[in-house]
Amino acid sequence: MSDVLSVDPRTGEPRERVAAESAPQDVDRAVRAAAATLPALADRAVRADLLRTAAALLEEGGEEIIATADAETALGRVRLTGELARTCYQLRAFAEVAEAGAFLDVIIDHADPDARPAPRPDLRRYKVPLGVVAVFSASNFPLAFSVPGGDTASALAAGCPVVVKAHPDHPATSVLTARALRAAAEKAGLPADVVGLVHGFSAGPELVRHPLTAAVGFTGSVRGGRALHDLAAARPRPIPFHGELGSLNPVVVTEQAAATRAAAIGAGLAASYTQGLGQFCVKPGLVLLPAGAAGDAVLDAVVTATVPAGPLLDPRMRAAFLDGVRSRAALPGVAQALAAGEDEAAPLAVRPGVLTVAAGQLAAGTHAELLEECFGPVTVVARYGSEAERDAVLGTLPGNLTATVHLGAGEREGAAAGLVARLAGLAGRVVVDGWPTGVTVAPAMQHGGPYPASTSTSTSVGSTAIERWLRPVCFQDTPDALLPPELREDNPLGVPRRVDGVA
Amino acid sequence: MSDVLSVDPRTGEPRERVAAESAPQDVDRAVRAAAATLPALADRAVRADLLRTAAALLEEGGEEIIATADAETALGRVRLTGELARTCYQLRAFAEVAEAGAFLDVIIDHADPDARPAPRPDLRRYKVPLGVVAVFSASNFPLAFSVPGGDTASALAAGCPVVVKAHPDHPATSVLTARALRAAAEKAGLPADVVGLVHGFSAGPELVRHPLTAAVGFTGSVRGGRALHDLAAARPRPIPFHGELGSLNPVVVTEQAAATRAAAIGAGLAASYTQGLGQFCVKPGLVLLPAGAAGDAVLDAVVTATVPAGPLLDPRMRAAFLDGVRSRAALPGVAQALAAGEDEAAPLAVRPGVLTVAAGQLAAGTHAELLEECFGPVTVVARYGSEAERDAVLGTLPGNLTATVHLGAGEREGAAAGLVARLAGLAGRVVVDGWPTGVTVAPAMQHGGPYPASTSTSTSVGSTAIERWLRPVCFQDTPDALLPPELREDNPLGVPRRVDGVA
Repeated sequence: MSDVLSVDPRTGEPRERVAAESAPQDVDRAVRAAAATLPALADRAVRADLLRTAAALLEEGGEEIIATADAETALGRVRLTGELARTCYQLRAFAEVAEAGAFLDVIIDHADPDARPAPRPDLRRYKVPLGVVAVFSASNFPLAFSVPGGDTASALAAGCPVVVKAHPDHPATSVLTARALRAAAEKAGLPADVVGLVHGFSAGPELVRHPLTAAVGFTGSVRGGRALHDLAAARPRPIPFHGELGSLNPVVVTEQAAATRAAAIGAGLAASYTQGLGQFCVKPGLVLLPAGAAGDAVLDAVVTATVPAGPLLDPRMRAAFLDGVRSRAALPGVAQALAAGEDEAAPLAVRPGVLTVAAGQLAAGTHAELLEECFGPVTVVARYGSEAERDAVLGTLPGNLTATVHLGAGEREGAAAGLVARLAGLAGRVVVDGWPTGVTVAPAMQHGGPYPASTSTSTSVGSTAIERWLRPVCFQDTPDALLPPELREDNPLGVPRRVDGVA
Repeated sequence: MSDVLSVDPRTGEPRERVAAESAPQDVDRAVRAAAATLPALADRAVRADLLRTAAALLEEGGEEIIATADAETALGRVRLTGELARTCYQLRAFAEVAEAGAFLDVIIDHADPDARPAPRPDLRRYKVPLGVVAVFSASNFPLAFSVPGGDTASALAAGCPVVVKAHPDHPATSVLTARALRAAAEKAGLPADVVGLVHGFSAGPELVRHPLTAAVGFTGSVRGGRALHDLAAARPRPIPFHGELGSLNPVVVTEQAAATRAAAIGAGLAASYTQGLGQFCVKPGLVLLPAGAAGDAVLDAVVTATVPAGPLLDPRMRAAFLDGVRSRAALPGVAQALAAGEDEAAPLAVRPGVLTVAAGQLAAGTHAELLEECFGPVTVVARYGSEAERDAVLGTLPGNLTATVHLGAGEREGAAAGLVARLAGLAGRVVVDGWPTGVTVAPAMQHGGPYPASTSTSTSVGSTAIERWLRPVCFQDTPDALLPPELREDNPLGVPRRVDGVA
């Protein structure tokens, strides 16, 4: 059995042996143990207690968690402190979602013997948890999209036990945070196995193929995510695979915006594409910038404002980044406004970079690689000579998590509505005069978009993320005392309901 | 190019040549033409007008439609008259759903610069149509689950154009009803191509693989549905596949129910398993009946009340039914309480049948075939000697559309709640003291269940069926005038919204 090691990306040296890679029987044991806890999770108030206790325990252990996560990821204490706060906020937000019960989507239609075209029986529908959810941690968010992250929080809120596949970039953080979640479960009177943890590459497919796994939440690469998606679809009993895979996150800067806000837009873009050293699923990877002087000023500001080098999460990621930049820079017509590349600051350090290309060339279909995500601190600036050129590029784009537009002051009404609508066709979230990095945890958030951004139409951030782990069940002509309490006539739990068409 | 023929199942003779099978270029043309109508469907009021006009035109042409459907399917004028009424009701119900706009699921979170853990931008989310929906007609419902059926109605209500794959058992009805829908579109000021129609076996895969197809609605067999599901998942860009495949629809009769209502339960079961000659996705295919005298009385009543022979929809279906009954009857321990089989009333006629087996034998795992749907008028009665035996059978069942229980008067509270909860784990709809056949079109309906009942967690009947064809989009910090009207601050269209947590 191989060892799972925690590695310091600042030195490239192993920090400690965390665990053994999970063998097939370990995965089987974890899934079975999780499945056995399903009945214990039936009470929404207990789930809320679990989630709030988890937040409290993560905060209590915050110092060690942040230090460990920083040692494994080099993401920095400031960023990780913010990520822990976000993670705890998210756990508490899902506690409220679980308590409020709107997600149960209760619909009651009373019997109507006179209904046309046929008499209607008494029908009462709500949603029940699917079962064990397999969660795949993300490399780039050791907390918010990993063991205690949004997939776990939303699944537990829905009443689903979770088995998390730890990411090899932060196994020690995974163990620490899983321990906090399991302790929280016990404090809430639940079995610790409502959250399980497995390690190692082969544990992923094992987890997806396990007969008791009922759904999957994944955040990661297109290649890895697609392979697991295909496994989920090929099972004897296919299961929902909610994957967030890859996104270019296009940004459009209009002529008017460039002419009036070059410095601010340039600085904002520099900060956004290098945030977390570009290791964000919502990193702006393609910028449509007007040709000419106003666009030049934006480009200059980007280059000037770009921050220095830093270490990426792991050597594989660094190699992919350097290869990706190299092959893109070698394409005909592509120039390096700022040369990304190796750096000697640390073994895994890289320097951020900006590539440029003419929009006309990009739209011609010969530069497909520029339309794929390159994970890390690089962005491609495509210069357009006309709106037609700009729109031709938009017409070639795959699905995205986000699409952003920077407008001039005179463009806040009128024709720009067409551009905004066009961007909405490309992405799950449209951002105006801002940056896609920073995904707010809020009911209205949509973090997901057309493939390859997501493999489903769901979101992985925000209250509606809970919808992924549920299925509706309808009870017909069922005596009140035999109904789940959420559906009884007198609504003893006070859940929101739509009764005979009235909410 | 092969001819598409309409065949009379009462005689086995071709009635007429309806069309040519669609070639790949015909499918491509239909999907492209449908996709081009997407912008025209943007207005919900126009969609409602289309759906209501379609209902009116189907009623106007009702006589011809019913006569044609009866001539092609032998389902009978009474049943088809009811099915047309149901279909028109469904179209009008979705017109109301489209107008009301609750399905848009509008959530607005206003900006909050003081929000913790991070300032919140203005976020506004609603749902947009996915694009062209491919609809696969069902053999057994030439209207309600075919061209003008629930998939089409819900997709159009969502704003999605539709291309329907006609079922070979009723091509003439398909052409007639497609003509009505296309005429309705033109009356509503829409392009006729919001609804397209294709014919022929190879048109199915072509439709699922087409790059502009955005989602699939399917009603049919496990084999056909699974093959298309796998195609949808294997596309370069996978798309949602909402398939309703197969269901055993177990029925449990308690000892107390059998002891007190044997005649009524037997008659009800006979009517339910032979309704539409057993060609219903919700046909009760497995009945758990107590061993002993009370159960015997139910079984006698079933046999006595079973109606005479009739023609199935097509020769392939008849052969599969006869083979299915034959191989099941040959299993050790299986007896024929009523022998299903061939009949000379008509070339495609069959006689209904009832098979019996001991529950203990069924639970042993050696009789897997009895746990698969056998399409047509046959049901399997498993006699249980104890609740443990009964529950052991329930523990071996795959997913179902429905699960039914008949209770005694003294079981309307107490321990039966556990049985009802157990059935809810097996199916999308639980029916108490009734029969699964007859799927009410109502907001609370759930017509879908764990695989193989469905390939997704959605429903194909009832208002929430519209959710299948939508994806959420969130607008961040977008000027009011650039927002879609549904999300503007003053709510000009008056759609239901959840604003800052308040509905």
